[in-house]
Amino acid sequence: MDHPPSAIIDPAEDALNRLGALVAPDLVACNRLIVERMQSPVALIPQLAAHIVAAGGKRLRPLLTLACARLCGYGLAQGMRHVLLAASVEFIHTATLLHDDVVDESVQRRGLASANAIFGNKASVLVGDFLFARAFQLMVEDGSVEVLAVLSRAAATVAEGEVLQLMTQNDLATTEARYLDVIGGKTASLFTAACEVGALVADDPPLGREAARTALARYGTCLGMAFQLVDDALDYGADPRHLGKTVGDDFREGKITLPVLVAYAAGDAAERRFWERTVGEGAQEEGDLETALTAIRRHNGIELTVERALFYATEAKSALAGFPAEPMADALRAIAEYTVHRLR
Amino acid sequence: MDHPPSAIIDPAEDALNRLGALVAPDLVACNRLIVERMQSPVALIPQLAAHIVAAGGKRLRPLLTLACARLCGYGLAQGMRHVLLAASVEFIHTATLLHDDVVDESVQRRGLASANAIFGNKASVLVGDFLFARAFQLMVEDGSVEVLAVLSRAAATVAEGEVLQLMTQNDLATTEARYLDVIGGKTASLFTAACEVGALVADDPPLGREAARTALARYGTCLGMAFQLVDDALDYGADPRHLGKTVGDDFREGKITLPVLVAYAAGDAAERRFWERTVGEGAQEEGDLETALTAIRRHNGIELTVERALFYATEAKSALAGFPAEPMADALRAIAEYTVHRLR
Repeated sequence: MDHPPSAIIDPAEDALNRLGALVAPDLVACNRLIVERMQSPVALIPQLAAHIVAAGGKRLRPLLTLACARLCGYGLAQGMRHVLLAASVEFIHTATLLHDDVVDESVQRRGLASANAIFGNKASVLVGDFLFARAFQLMVEDGSVEVLAVLSRAAATVAEGEVLQLMTQNDLATTEARYLDVIGGKTASLFTAACEVGALVADDPPLGREAARTALARYGTCLGMAFQLVDDALDYGADPRHLGKTVGDDFREGKITLPVLVAYAAGDAAERRFWERTVGEGAQEEGDLETALTAIRRHNGIELTVERALFYATEAKSALAGFPAEPMADALRAIAEYTVHRLR
Repeated sequence: MDHPPSAIIDPAEDALNRLGALVAPDLVACNRLIVERMQSPVALIPQLAAHIVAAGGKRLRPLLTLACARLCGYGLAQGMRHVLLAASVEFIHTATLLHDDVVDESVQRRGLASANAIFGNKASVLVGDFLFARAFQLMVEDGSVEVLAVLSRAAATVAEGEVLQLMTQNDLATTEARYLDVIGGKTASLFTAACEVGALVADDPPLGREAARTALARYGTCLGMAFQLVDDALDYGADPRHLGKTVGDDFREGKITLPVLVAYAAGDAAERRFWERTVGEGAQEEGDLETALTAIRRHNGIELTVERALFYATEAKSALAGFPAEPMADALRAIAEYTVHRLR
């Protein structure tokens, strides 16, 4: 028996749906383009790509490109540039997810078994490479060297952030500043570019081209920071049914995130020894995750992480202050606000 | 005690050196740019990249870009475009090597322990991603959308070839045509692009722009095919000290290459069962490599593979027929000829 839609409104999902509704035809065109351009005569490519691209991701990043373009006065009536670039952004993101799966040996992604678990390491790396190259082909089709500069720089910065994350893995001496560098690189830089190119496709955006570009880039950066901070908090506190993310993934991988840094810094000698064994040396036993969760709660690790996320979300909203009040700007502000409320 | 240079001239190396001498200042500039642009504040990136980029690879692909540009009348006096693009080509190639290391679990690359063996899978994937993104940043610096189109298409085709190779792994029903598709994708397509962009940077190449472009692309494709065929033959017949390549890598990985297809097709029932067990099912025992080498020799697997390589090498040479007789064209023809002589 089918159930009616849930009566409980998730404010984060609601904000996303409202934004999606404002760019509905653009998003339909983008999804169609994504499916079309992940085709290849090499059968394993669309097969594996479909597993991750079509697995019902939130399409947050391409949505941002589409919405920022529309905010700047560029929509389907003006052309397909924003659609091309939104698909390109999603391909870069998908390539990163595929390579992340290899990297993190994660068994779950978006609530489904990861592509890597089904198809193997090799296929994930190579199909990721294909999608990455395809992303650049889409940008070339767009034809703007300015846009190519923004997105190729973002792609390099994402990789730098991922490598930096690898270097800080298991390293409890990581500073908060370095952690912020990691998430700024691996997550926020693609959010930045996704929003920035929205301004670049438009002929005559409100505020003028350069100011619109700077404001949207700033919005994207801060939104990305908030998003990743909440993601890292969720890893120590979410209901896995809600987001398809298993609690404790980061802990098991020895990933250094803010909740851990907070608990480690504030912990007594016994707690510090606990973190050094479990995260520092990666020697984990049955029951360690529960101990970690208790320690993080004791030192308000989740609250302090969410507080930082709220700071960035507020910054993101204020970056849009110059844009005239209109539904698109409001919807983008709502996304910033509710990103933080993903944590219930 | 230092030894004098070897008295035995390797004709393949000699051809490479002759070409290198003709573009010596361009190559110096290219090597300098490569080292400069693989820098990053994230320390592991230059560290790992240096391991593979500076490991003394032959720089064959960037050399082709430089030589083709010079053949078309573009050198350092005209600008740095060919140098930028040669570095970009080398970065794409290096990214592929790094991802290939992950993929093939190979323990040796260019005679050194592979980056993967030293730094791990994760680092190889992510630094590969960085170099790939950096390659596109170099192209963006060049600023030609036409060049970006050629190289982004090549990058996608390389990935398709690698995925196709993965799909044919352990599959003895692979046809010769499909094998040629694999090497055409994974190897020849980057050779094609490396040569083609040489024509694109020049203002007024001999033969005219379109004809020069077509001829050089054809030269690159055929040279790449010859190169990979010989590489695949070497895997069953080279002196490992000579090339830093271990005999039998492909065999152990169940890679389907022409020497195996030849021996399998011509083998008797016992031989076919041998190939089905060792390559088809990957169930290998002590002594199997020797049996494989004997079977390949019995059916002239190496000779028939080299014969195909010679066919492509001849095609490559004739693709240059329209260019006026001059040292650069001669040196490129010599490369095609001696590519095949890597197999002694």
